[in-house]
Amino acid sequence: MSDNKIILGANDAFYEAFSSCNLKAMEGIWAVDTTICCIHPGWAPIFGRDAVIESWEKIFWGSETFDIFCNNAQEIIYGKVALVACQEVLSQGQLIASNLFVFENNVWRLSHHHAGPLGHFAPSPKASEATLH
Amino acid sequence: MSDNKIILGANDAFYEAFSSCNLKAMEGIWAVDTTICCIHPGWAPIFGRDAVIESWEKIFWGSETFDIFCNNAQEIIYGKVALVACQEVLSQGQLIASNLFVFENNVWRLSHHHAGPLGHFAPSPKASEATLH
Repeated sequence: MSDNKIILGANDAFYEAFSSCNLKAMEGIWAVDTTICCIHPGWAPIFGRDAVIESWEKIFWGSETFDIFCNNAQEIIYGKVALVACQEVLSQGQLIASNLFVFENNVWRLSHHHAGPLGHFAPSPKASEATLH
Repeated sequence: MSDNKIILGANDAFYEAFSSCNLKAMEGIWAVDTTICCIHPGWAPIFGRDAVIESWEKIFWGSETFDIFCNNAQEIIYGKVALVACQEVLSQGQLIASNLFVFENNVWRLSHHHAGPLGHFAPSPKASEATLH
């Protein structure tokens, strides 16, 4: 199978873990041997495996499913790093995501996720007034 | 100079070109030998150098400056690829950006930019109703 297909499969696996609120699967999807970063919609960046996994635990808390699916995934491969840009379709609207994968111990694992809105959005307050998560 | 400093310098150069609406400098900042991708706030992903540069031309059109500066830049290096996550402070609010750099012909060049809001935002319409840019 080509790297392209494997990377898109890893991206699908991320959304499968997300939509089924499967924390164990989510833990397996993220990279272990490098610093990871996650930017949930509207949140400040979260760095490091413990903090990122904890953020998913909070998102999944009390839910068995999360209404999300991925659309229009397009990959760019830079050697042992790959970017997937895709749309995230949720019940309340849609987002655009950048998902970065690294080839770690012969597996493509997620090292960075950034999701933000598609379409117009209300600007957030200035830095001095904002709450950083 | 360490790669970390050089990468953060490349990130600063991106915001210098952005804030001075310097299209020539912006053209020099983006990678040439790989597919590039740019996700402006609220926009769908733009792929390819011509389309990405054209989007900056539109953003800069008729302006001599753009009120933006970068804050809290943090880098993660994956060999010849590096991620910088940072805040973008604008007059009307602030954003979070993911900037991806590739080491191309001995220069760290931007291969992906994704900016989205920090703080709450209004969800965009569903995929079927959205206009893709």
